[in-house]
Amino acid sequence: MSDLAKYVAEFFGTMILIWLGDGVVANVVLNKSKGQNSGWIVITAGWGFAVMVAVYVVGWISGAHLNPAVTIGLATIGKFSWSLVPGYIIAQVLGAFVGAIIVYLMYMDHYAATEDPTAKLGTFATIPAIRKLGKNFMTEAFGTAMLLIGILGITNGNNQLVGGLGPLLIGLLIWAIGLSLGGPTGYAINPARDFGPRLAHAILPIPGKGDSDWGYGLIVPIFGPIVGGILGAVVYQLIMSIH
Amino acid sequence: MSDLAKYVAEFFGTMILIWLGDGVVANVVLNKSKGQNSGWIVITAGWGFAVMVAVYVVGWISGAHLNPAVTIGLATIGKFSWSLVPGYIIAQVLGAFVGAIIVYLMYMDHYAATEDPTAKLGTFATIPAIRKLGKNFMTEAFGTAMLLIGILGITNGNNQLVGGLGPLLIGLLIWAIGLSLGGPTGYAINPARDFGPRLAHAILPIPGKGDSDWGYGLIVPIFGPIVGGILGAVVYQLIMSIH
Amino acid sequence: MSDLAKYVAEFFGTMILIWLGDGVVANVVLNKSKGQNSGWIVITAGWGFAVMVAVYVVGWISGAHLNPAVTIGLATIGKFSWSLVPGYIIAQVLGAFVGAIIVYLMYMDHYAATEDPTAKLGTFATIPAIRKLGKNFMTEAFGTAMLLIGILGITNGNNQLVGGLGPLLIGLLIWAIGLSLGGPTGYAINPARDFGPRLAHAILPIPGKGDSDWGYGLIVPIFGPIVGGILGAVVYQLIMSIH
Amino acid sequence: MSDLAKYVAEFFGTMILIWLGDGVVANVVLNKSKGQNSGWIVITAGWGFAVMVAVYVVGWISGAHLNPAVTIGLATIGKFSWSLVPGYIIAQVLGAFVGAIIVYLMYMDHYAATEDPTAKLGTFATIPAIRKLGKNFMTEAFGTAMLLIGILGITNGNNQLVGGLGPLLIGLLIWAIGLSLGGPTGYAINPARDFGPRLAHAILPIPGKGDSDWGYGLIVPIFGPIVGGILGAVVYQLIMSIH
Repeated sequence: MSDLAKYVAEFFGTMILIWLGDGVVANVVLNKSKGQNSGWIVITAGWGFAVMVAVYVVGWISGAHLNPAVTIGLATIGKFSWSLVPGYIIAQVLGAFVGAIIVYLMYMDHYAATEDPTAKLGTFATIPAIRKLGKNFMTEAFGTAMLLIGILGITNGNNQLVGGLGPLLIGLLIWAIGLSLGGPTGYAINPARDFGPRLAHAILPIPGKGDSDWGYGLIVPIFGPIVGGILGAVVYQLIMSIH
Repeated sequence: MSDLAKYVAEFFGTMILIWLGDGVVANVVLNKSKGQNSGWIVITAGWGFAVMVAVYVVGWISGAHLNPAVTIGLATIGKFSWSLVPGYIIAQVLGAFVGAIIVYLMYMDHYAATEDPTAKLGTFATIPAIRKLGKNFMTEAFGTAMLLIGILGITNGNNQLVGGLGPLLIGLLIWAIGLSLGGPTGYAINPARDFGPRLAHAILPIPGKGDSDWGYGLIVPIFGPIVGGILGAVVYQLIMSIH
Repeated sequence: MSDLAKYVAEFFGTMILIWLGDGVVANVVLNKSKGQNSGWIVITAGWGFAVMVAVYVVGWISGAHLNPAVTIGLATIGKFSWSLVPGYIIAQVLGAFVGAIIVYLMYMDHYAATEDPTAKLGTFATIPAIRKLGKNFMTEAFGTAMLLIGILGITNGNNQLVGGLGPLLIGLLIWAIGLSLGGPTGYAINPARDFGPRLAHAILPIPGKGDSDWGYGLIVPIFGPIVGGILGAVVYQLIMSIH
Repeated sequence: MSDLAKYVAEFFGTMILIWLGDGVVANVVLNKSKGQNSGWIVITAGWGFAVMVAVYVVGWISGAHLNPAVTIGLATIGKFSWSLVPGYIIAQVLGAFVGAIIVYLMYMDHYAATEDPTAKLGTFATIPAIRKLGKNFMTEAFGTAMLLIGILGITNGNNQLVGGLGPLLIGLLIWAIGLSLGGPTGYAINPARDFGPRLAHAILPIPGKGDSDWGYGLIVPIFGPIVGGILGAVVYQLIMSIH
């Protein structure tokens, strides 16, 4: 498999991830949508299955990181080549950007029917429940540490996963993280998932949209997950080094 | 396996799909039902499992398309014989028609106990949340593109799915699409799923029923999914052609 | 495996089924319970997982029918020996009876804290949403027909299920039937599931309990499922006989 | 694998279990959290997936008991060495303690935003819905008996589980127990799950916290599960001894 094919796969997979992931938020948050106010179980199941589908589609090509924090975390512990990291991250951000545009096209009338600019932003990018950058950063870091621990734990060869089970389990891991750790910041746990769609929010001609909140978006959901991803990968390695 | 056996399988599978799928809508929407107002998680899980059950029952016979958009999409990219397409589509529509009649029989008293004619129609066929045919068409097309991308991605040989896992994953894919992309139009993403039951609605002696809304039903949920199915299959092929 | 071992397995498995199944109804329906009013998704998931757990525990011993309608349906199409049918049914009813007593013991204080006698009966046995014996009978028959079609379809050798996947899928089938077809009668779809616990309701010294409603319980949830089970098994055989 | 590695695995796994498990309670119960009031389905799915993730991460090292009641239950029927029991239990309690601290760090602002001291305690340890120590004890014992029956039944060699399926099924078992049997006491069914976090509650400088309720915590959620774990393991053995 060529590097180009892997980059395209990361682009395509992250596009699918955001297409379904931001889609479920649009469904729950926007006015007059059939899933309006259907709650946290819908949001978290939607994101979990979004990851699952994306990993089935492109996992065998690129490994389906779909997330710079995963890419960097794996590279840090020697499980991924640093030379591919920039290409992966660019592809992930572009894929997330395009995925958010598709969601906007599908829910266009519902964006027009929704007054609240914060609700609209929330369908693209994460917004903390209580805004305190230090705490929000820590929450994102811990959430992403769990993500890396879970990914490394599930895919560990000693589990001897049968063919095709892995992506389902990764999807359930995301569902779990959303249910349990998503309360304070809406679990970006992925810089591309937040930055790409936030860029789309800034650029798209959404009626009645507000600020894209870059003061939050350029710090917490980018560097929190990166720090946490490295932390989680290193802690996992450390624990596994005890025989 | 003879062509007849395949047609019968598509009939039987689509009947099961609508029996369970329209059944969950009836349960949530109709008056005095035990699942009344139980929300989007119930609707979407119900449709996901409906597909899963149908695919287990007939998948090994006919491939369990259960959906003309899947049949046409697969034929377009050479993964299904055009000569079988008409028979498959007829069988799917007939199966959906019969499935809807069974739901009506099971929930008959609840149809009688429900005033709202729109609610009754909604248990048979899809109704857009905001009626704008162009946008609704686009939403159905995008939703069905995701369906084809997901099906082709999950069943790709490189995933090396173990025996019996596939239908479960296809069911979860449907659940995902409902959660994330079903908000604007109620995700027909399948011309037979909408047309067959709409016909049943038109014919059945439902007390206090209203219009069957053919102005919507003959365009959006038929041609939106077909266009989207072709689009999704072609895009998937294109992405996979990059090595 | 001796016949005795199989009977004990059916007893133990049906006990587990009702222990968890009636348990989830008690949790949702009874006053002051932590799961009170948590809705149809909880009820149906609870029953689905109840079957799943029971089938894992005893499936390899007795086949885990746990349901006279399954036992009779399978015997009708020659997939189970009639000589074992009486023993299976007795074991299933006894197991359901004991399972209901355990639920009563676990939720005893919540039965005392609940006024409504119908709510209490509903934690033991099924109550139709709209009482019309003929329609209720038909609903139970159709629901159980789907059960047999689903069981025979999922476990069909052509699906080549890998080890250990089957009971999970049967659990999801039950979840599906509850979501989609449980609205009118609460889906007994199993004579033992209804009769055993109804007997427990009649016998147990539940404070403020009402009538056990044998006028419904001796007809609809017993003979509806038996008729439907035979119907579903025969229809499935018929469809599969077309090659 | 050394004993030390197993102890570390039990520590790490139970930490993950509580990190995700207490996390979901914090998300649902604490003020201003995005998952606030999202209900029993979220609580129970969260705990189920918490166990699933933890078992994938450490199961192949230590067996992933993560629970003194499981450790003691298995030792009682000769399926685990008594010599490892003290180390396992200490590691489990320490892991649960650390997991609860991580949840506190992640949700710190939400603890500050929540008035009710009982809600805060409920994110750490279990609180009965109706306080009657004898009944609560019985409920915990029965719930843990189901846990052991389920674990032994699912992992029984005759089920021939394919690689990697087991931890998912154990997670679904926990989901089932929560849905069905968690109503009266909040299903500790694990002395470490309750004691470790309760200790964290007692020690942490939580603003506006109340009593740690040791009068309940030192009896019911410790000895109820131990008695029930032994009971379940012995009953399972007994049933399986009939051939």
